[in-house]
Amino acid sequence: MEKSLVEIAEYLGGEIVGDGGMVIRGFAGIQEAKSGDLTFLSNPKYVSLLGETQASAILVSSKEKIQTDKTIVRVDNPSLAFSRVLSLFVEKSPETFAGIHPTAVISEAARISDNVTVGPHAVIESGVKIGEGSSIGAGVFIGFGTCIGENCLIYPNVTIRERNIIGNRVIIHSGTVIGSDGFGYVTEQGIHEKIPQIGIVEIQDDVEIGANVAVDRARFDKTFIGRGTKIDNLVQIAHNVRIGKNCIIVSQVGISGSTTIEDYVVLGGQVGVAGHLTIGAGTMVAAKSGIPSSVPPRSILFGSPAQPHMQAKRMSAALIKLPEYIHVIRKLEKKVEELERKIAGK
Amino acid sequence: MEKSLVEIAEYLGGEIVGDGGMVIRGFAGIQEAKSGDLTFLSNPKYVSLLGETQASAILVSSKEKIQTDKTIVRVDNPSLAFSRVLSLFVEKSPETFAGIHPTAVISEAARISDNVTVGPHAVIESGVKIGEGSSIGAGVFIGFGTCIGENCLIYPNVTIRERNIIGNRVIIHSGTVIGSDGFGYVTEQGIHEKIPQIGIVEIQDDVEIGANVAVDRARFDKTFIGRGTKIDNLVQIAHNVRIGKNCIIVSQVGISGSTTIEDYVVLGGQVGVAGHLTIGAGTMVAAKSGIPSSVPPRSILFGSPAQPHMQAKRMSAALIKLPEYIHVIRKLEKKVEELERKIAGK
Amino acid sequence: MEKSLVEIAEYLGGEIVGDGGMVIRGFAGIQEAKSGDLTFLSNPKYVSLLGETQASAILVSSKEKIQTDKTIVRVDNPSLAFSRVLSLFVEKSPETFAGIHPTAVISEAARISDNVTVGPHAVIESGVKIGEGSSIGAGVFIGFGTCIGENCLIYPNVTIRERNIIGNRVIIHSGTVIGSDGFGYVTEQGIHEKIPQIGIVEIQDDVEIGANVAVDRARFDKTFIGRGTKIDNLVQIAHNVRIGKNCIIVSQVGISGSTTIEDYVVLGGQVGVAGHLTIGAGTMVAAKSGIPSSVPPRSILFGSPAQPHMQAKRMSAALIKLPEYIHVIRKLEKKVEELERKIAGK
Repeated sequence: MEKSLVEIAEYLGGEIVGDGGMVIRGFAGIQEAKSGDLTFLSNPKYVSLLGETQASAILVSSKEKIQTDKTIVRVDNPSLAFSRVLSLFVEKSPETFAGIHPTAVISEAARISDNVTVGPHAVIESGVKIGEGSSIGAGVFIGFGTCIGENCLIYPNVTIRERNIIGNRVIIHSGTVIGSDGFGYVTEQGIHEKIPQIGIVEIQDDVEIGANVAVDRARFDKTFIGRGTKIDNLVQIAHNVRIGKNCIIVSQVGISGSTTIEDYVVLGGQVGVAGHLTIGAGTMVAAKSGIPSSVPPRSILFGSPAQPHMQAKRMSAALIKLPEYIHVIRKLEKKVEELERKIAGK
Repeated sequence: MEKSLVEIAEYLGGEIVGDGGMVIRGFAGIQEAKSGDLTFLSNPKYVSLLGETQASAILVSSKEKIQTDKTIVRVDNPSLAFSRVLSLFVEKSPETFAGIHPTAVISEAARISDNVTVGPHAVIESGVKIGEGSSIGAGVFIGFGTCIGENCLIYPNVTIRERNIIGNRVIIHSGTVIGSDGFGYVTEQGIHEKIPQIGIVEIQDDVEIGANVAVDRARFDKTFIGRGTKIDNLVQIAHNVRIGKNCIIVSQVGISGSTTIEDYVVLGGQVGVAGHLTIGAGTMVAAKSGIPSSVPPRSILFGSPAQPHMQAKRMSAALIKLPEYIHVIRKLEKKVEELERKIAGK
Repeated sequence: MEKSLVEIAEYLGGEIVGDGGMVIRGFAGIQEAKSGDLTFLSNPKYVSLLGETQASAILVSSKEKIQTDKTIVRVDNPSLAFSRVLSLFVEKSPETFAGIHPTAVISEAARISDNVTVGPHAVIESGVKIGEGSSIGAGVFIGFGTCIGENCLIYPNVTIRERNIIGNRVIIHSGTVIGSDGFGYVTEQGIHEKIPQIGIVEIQDDVEIGANVAVDRARFDKTFIGRGTKIDNLVQIAHNVRIGKNCIIVSQVGISGSTTIEDYVVLGGQVGVAGHLTIGAGTMVAAKSGIPSSVPPRSILFGSPAQPHMQAKRMSAALIKLPEYIHVIRKLEKKVEELERKIAGK
């Protein structure tokens, strides 16, 4: 696929400086770009890279007075603009299953709005509602009574169990399971008796959930994911977890039952959060950390068990030097012994 | 859904004290409960919460002499009773695919017992046996020769490969894969040659396995999960692992090949266990721990590499104070030097 | 299934020493083997086990002069030979869906070569190419434009999104997702705007990928997995990751975006690798390690944050003794104080 630079600049509302008569065929970071590529300069401190890049055109901020003999396009926010122009290049299937594929099994008691696509072999049970413009991939299962909003994108082989509520513009990637039973048992004479999980999952507007994620339904009440939160692949969200708005949950994170993650929290990859905690708004947690107790808003955490960032750094630095300090301690022991002998000997 | 308190008390064999003429519409913990909710008092030391709860009725132990003006129901085990009454409220699909859905592809050489449900687009190969009362969800694949017992619940989009053995009342949640090949290669001149994985997986009665779990088949012989063991989401069980009875394996745990987990072991979330070990019966391992070597029965472990709990606690406490102790060591060094000078100077 | 030892020795090109008139019915390690089993001696230093094993026959190296009254088969490489004879015993389905199952939904604009098997309810979109001898399992989804080479084995319920490139003899296990969107957003006034992920995934020849793995497509360009690399279950491969040839990636590893893993790297279970790094060829990383920065070729790493192996061992040993050294420091403090007093008192 290719588009002229003029067409791209128009789409972005940007201003071309230099030769606009070229055609863009690809995209890359400023250092990897080749001839024919569009790239962008996100940070003016890297302006020297403009001289070196092989890109045919560069998106730059209109706030900076940048001088270059390269072709540039001035825009408000180069990184956002770059992302938007990428979306122009997303290839649509030359032949997609628009409408309802005849092999899909859809209950007569389901309510499917206009302009909904349902792929081959999808299964939609009774009482399900699907809003306008949503797309349900091949092999997706949607259990009875689940409601899905408008313009959602449910990729192939997703499983959404019964009675869940999913907002508008929600994206769920393949292999993900929404509404599996929470993990709860009462142990009676050594036997683990299952606690029925009769709650639901509610996912608000503009949430994106990666591939092979598991979001358990609540024991009662609901497991909740707030508006605009983004969840990466292979994440575990246990029963009755509440996640606020616009959080970023990186791959392989595990959040234990009944924990609350407030708005704008960022959890790095493979982080584990224990159950029944509150992680204050705006908290950032480094990859692989383990969080055993609640933390106030805007905490910056690191390690397992997680510590405030600066303390963890000091601990980490001290730990690396520990073998040599143990050496020092042993020498001190000997010297003190000798001093004691000398003084006693007087 | 709603039920009268009288009906609930009868179901539990409990005794109502107070006004029984009410209707229960929901459930919650004792502190979150609202009017219309049923709750329970699991531990008599929280008896003061009875005064504060908004719940309309509370399940309490018949062993305690509890005085309150709230409506209570005396039962043997309040937490177990609460769990059982929840199951009364599980909504059944108003229209489920009872029987065999016509879109399911079932080999004529499979043996499906009475009262088995097979959902749309399920695939059942030859030689498969499915016991009475079991339910196979939409999109499930069951490979040739696999045997599934009675009253099992296999949720949509589960994959069970060939020749595995699954007991009675086993529950497997969506996205889970049973019997994938173990991860084994012989490296010959830099090339990893695949070792055929010709063993099976055997899962005993009353096991529950969460969503998006992977249980590999054995290289030869079998990977084994004992009766009553419960496994959470996104867990990895490698080839030839043997898990005993009534274990609890929390989400995102990984158990490496040929390791034996004895009865009643509890592994916290994200724990990793190395290969070819034996984890003694009744051992409890804190979340995120890594276990590099075998441990005796009833160990309590913590950390990575895992240490006995008390030692790990002391280490952790010492580690937090390490930067300040390094400061102390430096001061001691100077003081000792000064003392040495003074003594030498005499 | 059973085979005569003569038949097995012929298949391996090995030489029988002892009674060859027996039938082999099973396989086991040398210590677990029972009568009727074949086993192997991989390392001559365990030659004393030959006396104790219950196995009916043992594969041994033809390089060693082994004396025993047991029946042995001399072969070049006993462990490789054992693996090869196992493959003789792999049971084929008595009735498999050879050819294209009538319930598969295949675009007329897909190109399916000869001798391809497509299982029930598989979905193959337009522009897909599948090479000779490949097998596509039940419920598999293959998005438009994806190319799959010859003799690939795609297990049931795998999802391969659009426009990916997969080589020859690639094996992908159930539940795995190839080509899901990379996890990338531009945050603009507190809102995370999705960055379109218009790249692809390329997987070279002889790669094997376990169950419930997620391999994200690139933002642009491609996510790449080199020839002969083997990936275990539940692994996360983020967008724009490049993995070299013949790597071993154990279960539950997470590799963050744009990181390069060079040839012959081994990552232990649950390892996490941060983004934009280069892990040098031949590096070996112990299970559960976290890698925050690039490392040179042939590094041996351990811990989180990962350290060179020997340093990590020293640190770990020092850490275990830390509580007792803190005790020593306190005693030294007191003694030095006393010495100071004594000297001042003079």
